Amino acid sequence: MKSLTEYLWFNTKGHREYVNITDEVEGIVKKSKVQEGMVLVSAMHITAGVYVNDAESGLIQDIDEWLEKLAPFNPDYRHHRTGETNGDAHLKSLLIHHEVILPVTKGKLDLGPWQQVYYAEFDGQRKKRVVVKVFGD
Amino acid sequence: MKSLTEYLWFNTKGHREYVNITDEVEGIVKKSKVQEGMVLVSAMHITAGVYVNDAESGLIQDIDEWLEKLAPFNPDYRHHRTGETNGDAHLKSLLIHHEVILPVTKGKLDLGPWQQVYYAEFDGQRKKRVVVKVFGD
Amino acid sequence: MKSLTEYLWFNTKGHREYVNITDEVEGIVKKSKVQEGMVLVSAMHITAGVYVNDAESGLIQDIDEWLEKLAPFNPDYRHHRTGETNGDAHLKSLLIHHEVILPVTKGKLDLGPWQQVYYAEFDGQRKKRVVVKVFGD
Repeated sequence: MKSLTEYLWFNTKGHREYVNITDEVEGIVKKSKVQEGMVLVSAMHITAGVYVNDAESGLIQDIDEWLEKLAPFNPDYRHHRTGETNGDAHLKSLLIHHEVILPVTKGKLDLGPWQQVYYAEFDGQRKKRVVVKVFGD
Repeated sequence: MKSLTEYLWFNTKGHREYVNITDEVEGIVKKSKVQEGMVLVSAMHITAGVYVNDAESGLIQDIDEWLEKLAPFNPDYRHHRTGETNGDAHLKSLLIHHEVILPVTKGKLDLGPWQQVYYAEFDGQRKKRVVVKVFGD
Repeated sequence: MKSLTEYLWFNTKGHREYVNITDEVEGIVKKSKVQEGMVLVSAMHITAGVYVNDAESGLIQDIDEWLEKLAPFNPDYRHHRTGETNGDAHLKSLLIHHEVILPVTKGKLDLGPWQQVYYAEFDGQRKKRVVVKVFGD
């Protein structure tokens, strides 16, 4: 079994941001020389997520508004008694999820024509990390 | 390491539909001859999902109504400026998720007694695909 | 390829409960002797989930209230015509998801500093199970 582990670093300008990481993930898959296997793409933080969907700017704004509607900023989360103010970012991370696992077939990401991999930052403006781990034959 | 990749095709009659694919996935696992490993079941579209839950028709209707409540059809999504009308289907896909990964133990899907694998179509009446990838020893 | 499959059993006192299982999962990874690979942690029930987030008691209460808001108890779910009363537990399971897959690097769970693995019980006070499957080299 071959495997390769790399880490992507982020430090977004905005508090919330959606970063297309498909090319980076594809590059790591290529570097791994895995032909048949999978790649795990997983945020290493509890206020960020990773998801697969469309690279369409209008939709990305729709997703952001939808997440804010279902997991809104609210000063009153119990979590804020610890001094934090990012309770909503934890809930957004749970809603969108922190990881995806993608198939690798014939040495490439086996995605549908519109599927793109996104890093979703919900509490940015500081250094954060995603682990990308490929394994297979 | 053994691996086997197959694709399931769908063309649902309804706009939204929930299709039990447990037997198809189990059949692919058997064909792969993998004894210990995993199987990834992943929609290749951004307006569909894959989930694990109960094969009970009342519950499936509850799930459908719940998804419509949390990620409703709405003519005003920004995504619709592209000419699309399926913004809600993207959000439903994010909510239910596009993939599951299931354990394979002693050559079989290692599921609990009520766990069934479903393809969730949110924008049907056209050809769509799911990738099923088994790997292990 | 090495693999190891173990099952964790739960019988929570409360109807809903959140149990930190990070140490148990780490122990199974260690026992497997896998150095590079992954571990799947998956609820075997359709009224429970597994997620990764913070071990902070205030946040856990926030998560519980948030799940109840988005997937509330309601006597009127169609699923209840079967005699069940746990429709909300199915929806909460779908929202939080039933499984996570975690990277194993140099023989350890490759998690960020605040990432902890939780079993989320939504219909407890009876015996339930989680499968933990490690595989890799």
